[in-house]
Parts: sequence; C-alpha cells; structure tokens
Amino acid sequence: MCGITGYIGDRDAYPIVINGLKRLEYRGYDSAGIMMYDGESMNLSKTKGKVSDLEVITNNQESRKKGKIGIGHTRWATHGVPNDVNSHPHFSESGDLVIVHNGIIENYDTIKKELISRGYKFQSDTDTEVLINLIEEVKKTEECKLGKAVQLALTNVIGAYAIAVFDKTKPNELVVARLGSPIAIGVGKDNEEFFVASDASPFIEFTKDALYLEDGELAIIKKGRKVKVRKIDNDKPVDPDIQELKLSLDQIEKGGYDHFMLKEIYEQPKAIIDTYRGRMLANEGIIRMAGVDDNISKFLNADRIIIIACGTSWHAGLVGEYLIEDMARIPVEVEYASEFRYRNPIITPKDVVIAISQSGETADTLAAIKLAKSKGAFVFGVCNVVGSSIARETHAGAYTHAGPEIGVASTKAFTTQITVLTLLSLKLAQAKGTLSKTAVNTYLQTMQQVPNQVEQLLKIDPIVKEIAYHYKDATNCLYLGRGFNFPVALEGALKLKEISYIHAEGYPAAEMKHGPIALIDENMPVFVIATRKGHYEKVVSNIQEIKSRSGKIIAIVTEGDETVKEIADHVIEIPETEEALTPLLTTIPLQLLSYHIAVMLGKNVDQPRNLAKSVTVE
Amino acid sequence: MCGITGYIGDRDAYPIVINGLKRLEYRGYDSAGIMMYDGESMNLSKTKGKVSDLEVITNNQESRKKGKIGIGHTRWATHGVPNDVNSHPHFSESGDLVIVHNGIIENYDTIKKELISRGYKFQSDTDTEVLINLIEEVKKTEECKLGKAVQLALTNVIGAYAIAVFDKTKPNELVVARLGSPIAIGVGKDNEEFFVASDASPFIEFTKDALYLEDGELAIIKKGRKVKVRKIDNDKPVDPDIQELKLSLDQIEKGGYDHFMLKEIYEQPKAIIDTYRGRMLANEGIIRMAGVDDNISKFLNADRIIIIACGTSWHAGLVGEYLIEDMARIPVEVEYASEFRYRNPIITPKDVVIAISQSGETADTLAAIKLAKSKGAFVFGVCNVVGSSIARETHAGAYTHAGPEIGVASTKAFTTQITVLTLLSLKLAQAKGTLSKTAVNTYLQTMQQVPNQVEQLLKIDPIVKEIAYHYKDATNCLYLGRGFNFPVALEGALKLKEISYIHAEGYPAAEMKHGPIALIDENMPVFVIATRKGHYEKVVSNIQEIKSRSGKIIAIVTEGDETVKEIADHVIEIPETEEALTPLLTTIPLQLLSYHIAVMLGKNVDQPRNLAKSVTVE
Repeated sequence: MCGITGYIGDRDAYPIVINGLKRLEYRGYDSAGIMMYDGESMNLSKTKGKVSDLEVITNNQESRKKGKIGIGHTRWATHGVPNDVNSHPHFSESGDLVIVHNGIIENYDTIKKELISRGYKFQSDTDTEVLINLIEEVKKTEECKLGKAVQLALTNVIGAYAIAVFDKTKPNELVVARLGSPIAIGVGKDNEEFFVASDASPFIEFTKDALYLEDGELAIIKKGRKVKVRKIDNDKPVDPDIQELKLSLDQIEKGGYDHFMLKEIYEQPKAIIDTYRGRMLANEGIIRMAGVDDNISKFLNADRIIIIACGTSWHAGLVGEYLIEDMARIPVEVEYASEFRYRNPIITPKDVVIAISQSGETADTLAAIKLAKSKGAFVFGVCNVVGSSIARETHAGAYTHAGPEIGVASTKAFTTQITVLTLLSLKLAQAKGTLSKTAVNTYLQTMQQVPNQVEQLLKIDPIVKEIAYHYKDATNCLYLGRGFNFPVALEGALKLKEISYIHAEGYPAAEMKHGPIALIDENMPVFVIATRKGHYEKVVSNIQEIKSRSGKIIAIVTEGDETVKEIADHVIEIPETEEALTPLLTTIPLQLLSYHIAVMLGKNVDQPRNLAKSVTVE
Repeated sequence: MCGITGYIGDRDAYPIVINGLKRLEYRGYDSAGIMMYDGESMNLSKTKGKVSDLEVITNNQESRKKGKIGIGHTRWATHGVPNDVNSHPHFSESGDLVIVHNGIIENYDTIKKELISRGYKFQSDTDTEVLINLIEEVKKTEECKLGKAVQLALTNVIGAYAIAVFDKTKPNELVVARLGSPIAIGVGKDNEEFFVASDASPFIEFTKDALYLEDGELAIIKKGRKVKVRKIDNDKPVDPDIQELKLSLDQIEKGGYDHFMLKEIYEQPKAIIDTYRGRMLANEGIIRMAGVDDNISKFLNADRIIIIACGTSWHAGLVGEYLIEDMARIPVEVEYASEFRYRNPIITPKDVVIAISQSGETADTLAAIKLAKSKGAFVFGVCNVVGSSIARETHAGAYTHAGPEIGVASTKAFTTQITVLTLLSLKLAQAKGTLSKTAVNTYLQTMQQVPNQVEQLLKIDPIVKEIAYHYKDATNCLYLGRGFNFPVALEGALKLKEISYIHAEGYPAAEMKHGPIALIDENMPVFVIATRKGHYEKVVSNIQEIKSRSGKIIAIVTEGDETVKEIADHVIEIPETEEALTPLLTTIPLQLLSYHIAVMLGKNVDQPRNLAKSVTVE
C-alpha cells in the first residue's frame, strides 16, 4: 500500500498535495515525494521518511512548491528498500514523463530486461520506474498520446496498480488508472479543477463530487473538460459515475470502516493474495521465493529450524512449526525472542533461524537475530515493513505484503505471516521431496481458494456479531484448539485480551483436563476450534466434557458439521479446506468476535490501553 | 511412603490391623500384606493391589485372620515393582523374624552382597528383605535379643525407616524403630495392649494415649510392661513422652494439616531429600542414576531431547529444558503429550525422549511414549509411582521419591520432578564436560542446602497467608517470570486456577508488552518472580511498567532485595541460591498462596471441581 495524490486546476497545488499525503500516511510512511510543475519545468522533491521530512526539504526552497499541477506519493515499500532514490515520483528516461504508483508490477523484471536491451537506464530498484519507461517506450514506438500509451503499457503489465502519470510536453492533463489498488478523482466546480488520490480524504474540503475508478479503468483528466473514462483492455468508454461524498474525513481514511482494525480484517483476502502473488504459480506447481531459492542448501542441511518472535508473530511461528514439521519434516523449535536471547541458546552454523515481526523493529527479536548471527546461524526474516531493521539485519527473507497495519491489534499481519510460512513449508517439502508433486499441487490449488473463502467468511460477520453480543459481558474466556489450530486458539485469546481487556486464555484442547477445566462453570464461554480433519472426535469429547460442566461452547466447525452443532451453544462454520490451511480461515471469525465485543464495550479498538503498535524497547 | 500397623494384646488383632491399613492407604496403595501370629505359627497374606484386595485373600481362609498379634503394611513402592513377592511383611531367611518397613535403605546393595556371601538367599527385590536378614545375621553372630539385634543392624544402615519387627521365637514383643519416617505407638490401659502405626489413625478409637518415636529411637513393646525406648546410636534410655491424642481421625491422616495439599507442600523438604538421597554424593562430586549410567551413550549422542508431559509435569519439563540446555548444551524441545502424539512428530533413533508423569498413568503421555518407541527413540521416564504403566513402558527412568500425592493439585511431585531433572542435567553436563568439575560440585553443594531453604520458606507461611487475604477476591491474576522461572510462573498460575477457580495466567515477563499488558488495571494482581540473578533489571522494568498502569505487584525476590521492595505492593523473599535452582524455592510461596486463597474462598482444596488426580483417559 502507498498513498498517491494529485492536483490540476487554478489553485496552488502544493498545500493540497502535501496535506493530502499527510492524510494518506495510514497507507504507508517510509518515504515521500512530490513533483510540482510550475508551468515550465518539473520540480521533484523526495526523501526517505515521513511527509514531515519531505516538508523540511520543500521548505528550504520555495521553487519546490510552485505550480498549479502536482502529484505526490507516500510510500510503503514492496520492491527496493525505502531510500531517497526508490521514493516516488519517478521520471522516465527522457525526463518528460513522471509517475506515482501504488501496487506491485509482478513481471517488472522481464520488462526491465527488455527495456535495458533497448538502451534504457534505471536509477532505482523499483518496479515503478520500469512502468514509466515502458509507457515512454510505447508512446515513442506507437507515436500516440499519453492516455493511449498508458493504456497499451498496462495491457503488458501483470500485477496491481493505481497510478497517476503526467507528461510535461502536454502539461494540461493527468492520466490515472487502476487495477487492484484504489483511486478516487475529485471533480471541482465546472470541471475547472481535479483532485486525484488513493481515497477521498485529501480533497474532501474542496469538493463533494468524487469518481471512484473501477478495476481495469483508465481516466484522462483535463482541466475544463469532463473526465473521460475507458476500459483498459478493450478501449470501451465508461460513463463516469460521480458520487456525492457522505463520509467524514476520519471515515474515509478508514475506507468507510469504523476502525482501522475492522478495515484490516476485511483487507485480508487481498493481503493474502498480495503475499502469494508472484510467488505461487499454482497451475505450474511452482513456488518462487528468492530468499529461499538463493539459500536452499542452508534450509535443506539444517539440523533444525528455530523460529523467534513475540506476541502475535510468535503464534504465527507456532503455526509455522506445525507446517514445516508436517510438510518438510525438519525439526522446528519456536522461542519467545525475549527468552531466547537471554539464555545462552544452543545455536550452531547448521541451524536456520526464522525471525518473524510485523514491524521489523521488535527489539527483542532484533537482539535475538544478532545473537543467532554471532553464533553463525543463517537468519531468515519474515517482516511486513520493507527495509525495516530486521529486514536489513537478516541474511534473507520474505516480506508479507499486508500493507501498513495501523490497528494496534495485529490481524492481517498474522494471516499473511502464515501465508509466507505455508509457502516456505511447501517449498521446502518440494525441495526435500517430503511431499509428492501431487500433494504440493493440491496444496497450491487449495491455497488459491483461500482468499475467496476468507471473503465468504467475512460475509457471516452479522452472525459473529450476534454471538459477540451474547458474550460481551463475560469476564473470562477460554480458547481451545488442537494441532494447526492450537496456535489459533492462543491468537484468538490474545485478540480478545488486547482490545476488550477480557481475560481470555488459549490452550491445547487436551490440556483442559490437566487444570484449566476447574475454571469451567455456567459463566465461562469456551471457544473451541473443531475442524473436521483436526482430530475432530477428540475435540468433540473435550466439548462434551465442558458442556457437562455447564460451560458455554462457541464452536468453529467445518461447514456441514452436524455433531458439534447439536452440543454447542453457538456454531460458526468455515469452508472446507486442507487442515494445514485452516488457520487462515479459523482466525477470521475470532478476530471479528474480539472486534465486536470491544466495540460493544466501548473500548478504543485501534489504540487499546497500555499497548504500542511495535515494541521497539525491551 | 508406606503405611505400617501392628497390634499386640488380648483382642483379635486382625480387624485392628486391617482397618488400620485402610486408614493408612493415603500413604500408599500399590500392595498390602499382613502377618498374623496365632500363638504357634505366623500366617502371611500379601498381594499386589489395595487393602481391599488383601481382604479377598484373607476372607478365603479364616486361619489367616487368627491371632492376638499382627503386623500389616500398605506399600508405596520405592525399590522393586509392586507385586506379591515384593509386598511386605518380609520374613528372614530362617522364617523366624518378620518385618514391615516404611522408608529406603540406601546401602542395601552392599549389605545384600555381604549377606549373599554368607549364604543368604533373597525372594524379593526389596531393601526391606535385606534389612530383616541383616537383623537375623546380627542376632545370630552377636547372640543377642531381638531389640539389641535390631539396634545393631540399624547402626549399619544408611537411609530412612520406620520398622516393626516380630520374632516368633519370642512371641511376646514387637520392636519398632524410626529414622526419617514416622511411627506412633498407641498405649492401651495398664499397658495390656499396644498399637503400632505410621500415624495414630489406626488406633484412635482404642486409646488416646500415644507415644511418637523421635528420629534415632527404638522401642521395645511387651504386653503388660511399660514401653522401653532408647537411642539407637548410643543405647541411652529415653523417657517415653506419652501424649493425649486431640486430633480427629481425618486430621491424623492429614498429619495434622487441614488438607492433604498443605501436608504435601510441607513434605517437600523431605521429598526433595528422598529424591536425591543415594543419587547425589555432594562431597565426592558424584551423581548416581542407574537409568542414566546404563544408557549414557544414548544421552550423549542424542541430536536432541524431547520432553513430553501434560499439566504440571509439562511445566517441570520446561524447567528441564532450561536446565539441560544451560548445563549440558543439548537442544531440548518440550511438547504437550496430546499434541505430540497426534501430529506425526519427527523422531529418530538418535533422539532421546523424556516422559514425565506423577502417576505414571497419564493416557496421552503413555500413548506418546509408545509412538516414540515405535520410531526407535530411547525413552526415559520420570514418574512418582513405582511400577506404573509409564515406568514399565519406558526403557529406563528415575523415580521421584515424593511418596503418594493425594491432593489433586500437584505440589511435591513438581519439585521432585525438578530435582530429578536437575540431577540429570548435572550428570549429563559432567559426562559431556560442559560444566567444570568445580561448577558441578558447587551445584551439588548448593543443592544440598535447598531442603533447608524450603523449610525456611515454609516458615514464612503467615506472611504468604496475609498476602493471600489481600487478593482472595481477585477475579483474575497474572504470573510473570523469565528464564528458569518462566515455567514457575505458569505453574503458579495453574495452581491458583485449579483450586481457587480464579483465572490466572502465566507469561514470560517480556511478552507482557505484546498483549497481556492491556489487561492491567488497578484490579489486576500480578505475581512477578524477580530473583537477583534472573535478568533482574529486565524484570524490574516490567514491574515498573505494570505499576505505572496501576497494577498490583506481588514480587518474589532474593532475600536482601531493595529495589523491588520499593516498587512492589508485597514482597516475598527467598533464600539465595544458584539461579538454576531457584525454581525449587520460588515455587513454594506460590503453592502456599494458592492454597490459602482457595481455603479462604471455601473451595474443596484436595478435590477441586471437574478435576481428577491422574488423567488416564484422553
């Protein structure tokens, strides 16, 4: 995720673009840039850091702010670490075209090689610079207008994007296009000015008329003229549907959701796709992970894999343990980073350490990585923030392309971490031959259905909300699961703790009888994950033990389940999938449940008391 | 622990002895036996099983019940599995002498060899049969009376005992003696009858006059004559201190404590000594563990050690992980038995599996052992019940000599499991050379002080009770620890859960910031273990974070601590020891605390709701 803004009209563009970027910083904040066209030339200012860092630069030189046309960008890195060069906007080779881009161009490498062979040179590591040069090349070879060039270029592109492009040789228009990433166009009075942005928040005080591009649409924006929209693939014109904005600024930033957490829960289908996009070629049975490919012998020769993490990432690590041991048959140990680093852990150069952290800045995890490296271990990072300390400190890694996570309670980071660990496990299983080709292919095909299944689960949110209402006044809860879903039980409990302040605790279901069952009475809701292939009969026995002690059961079952439905007080059904992939589904209703309970209790969902988004101190 | 009873007088001895044994079954119940002297010959009945099983045998044949003199025994095996032959009473070679014995003769092996060389033959594997033959041999060679023979024999014995001996050639007396194990003598009217028992419960309805032998005392009991007591080592006569019994039957069985759990908490100094007795020769720097010695190469060549357990034993396993990794530098993985057995675990013949279970009957652990064996792993058991299923199913093992644990919430089993694991870790460290000779010796010397330090801690019970009073109405608690004391935090929380039904949860201290800290407000008591060498500064920071959010802190600190005392609401001091040994101390106040809270809340401490002592079903 990145944020883009643009303006064309009669006002000074600078304050509009720069303030717009600030509003879009929830979409990313690792670098920022702005291009101002002063009527003659383009002035580019960009820097690593936040929009406020960019302002320091522009404030130094008034010329950087001059002009009635401008585009800006606040970045959340996906390709190339956050630095000045990789920041947007990016110029084309000739210097005539300039682009801001939100999304990922998957086939940028192929295109880049072709362009290099035609003499193009690249300043940055970004996929975006590839795209603008492709547009330039098309424009030159086809001798067409900017709109057409953008359109033709995009037909050659695989990936996701929202872009805004400006051509200083035709300085009266902006071309914008969308596939997978949002873009809104604010329409000024009499079409005398236009605003472009990732959402409407940057222009809400200037106009209430907004046009949201649909996937596969391209718009040509010219001052004083109606916006022209057409389909990228077949050139068909589209009648622009200009809507009246009714949301508040705050609501717009949250994509219409009441809280960032809810927005992020709903973003999970896309976040999972973004995470496996380009890595998983399900039809060919191929898994591509450069960080693994380049170091495959380290993984295959590992005596054991040690996963280090904290909090929610530690839970993802536990799922990783079950996945890797099950699929790739390599012994895995999961450690709390804080415990690992202080206990003189046994690590050798034959060990592989996987460090997991959403922010990539978790202090204990970072220190544990340094310790593991000092003992000669190969360290692989799984982070969400590109170029973060952990990403830099590890030997290799795989990013979770979840986009910025603003809600303090982690949601999409967890499911995308599991996505990466699933791909990693399958890749290692493939390389070691511990899973047959057919088995791997089945997993990949099944994995492809997961985002849709998550989408389907999100639709039963009203049912979950109803259940939440029943249990919102509970003072304590238990969460039980077995196998792959034992860590999900821990994570479910953590979510409820974090945002509702209800004391919830997770356990492997069979451990109940060794103590926690003493807590069970008619006031104790117990959330049990009882998927059909997950030692189902054993979990059903546990459910019966709880029921016979008057506990309340909320069960997460596979759709079509009949047995548990008869015993449980409430049932949430998840679609059928491979047992190893169920954590990606069973997690969803538990997230929603915690969310609704916290909202009903009037808690500050996005900023729960006592907590910080990333724990950068010990 | 075993239970012994005896009678000499004018009544039928059988019902007195047999009913007495039933009252003593809390001391052990794996086999039982009775010897009745009918005026001419001794009739011996014994069997594996409970006293009720013994009755089935005696009821078959009236002659087995005949006589005015009898001694009986209910056994808790320490040497030799529970079977008919190993059951007490035991005859001497000649068949003239008979003994019942509670305790352990450490140097029985040396004595046995000597006796074999003199022509003695042995029927059983017990240390007890060795003792009775030693007495016979002394009686023969010294040509002395039974009392003197017993006395001389005992001076050659190292260990602990409470014994009652009868000689059919002098059928008017019983000789009893005590060192380390209790024995009480009930004195009938005009010294016309006497009762002998491990505690007064077997004879409380017959007499209120009881004489409790002190350690190192021997008594000669003759009908119609005052009991004669003397010191074993120096022959000095002792004036018998006959007391009036004031306790109820129920109180006597509980050793004067209100609950078995409390009794067992207080038994820990002895239980720890019993567990290391004969294994740890601190002055010589020697650790003897037959099950390890015989299989040392398995341990030393192990790629990794996998510990499997459930509940409290799983917590002991976690302490074991820290101990073994720290001292012996072998990677350890601790698994819930229930999770391990169902997830196709990675085990090879190069792995060593340690299974921990108090009862030795835990169903999931037993199944996990069978699975590990089927994959070729060497399995080492740590159980409390001799001859239990797990003891039989494992390749080797080490018993915790805690004696029977009756309270459902495990206490002395936990500390003795840790004692065994500490000895094991030190032994492996010695064999691998990962600890210097000096370091091992320091540990052994320090370990020897632990039972006294536990005793010292038990004396501050009133302080703990006072703290319990403050927090008895809490609905939730957190327990925090780091390193060796992280598992103690888990165990402390489990104890409170089990018997008070208060929702308590343990965490590694540094994980607080990754979620649980959201629970902290002025109503949340947080029990923090902050020993001086246990990453003290880090834990102090955690304490401050909690205090600044109004949480209540009850800290367990090393004596003399000043820093935490200033911040915490309550402080419990433990004596100074090696950090690796602190779990044996920090556990104690947490056990007491849970106990007192449960009592104050009026809960059934020994039989908490929903729980069973051993989980023999999945």
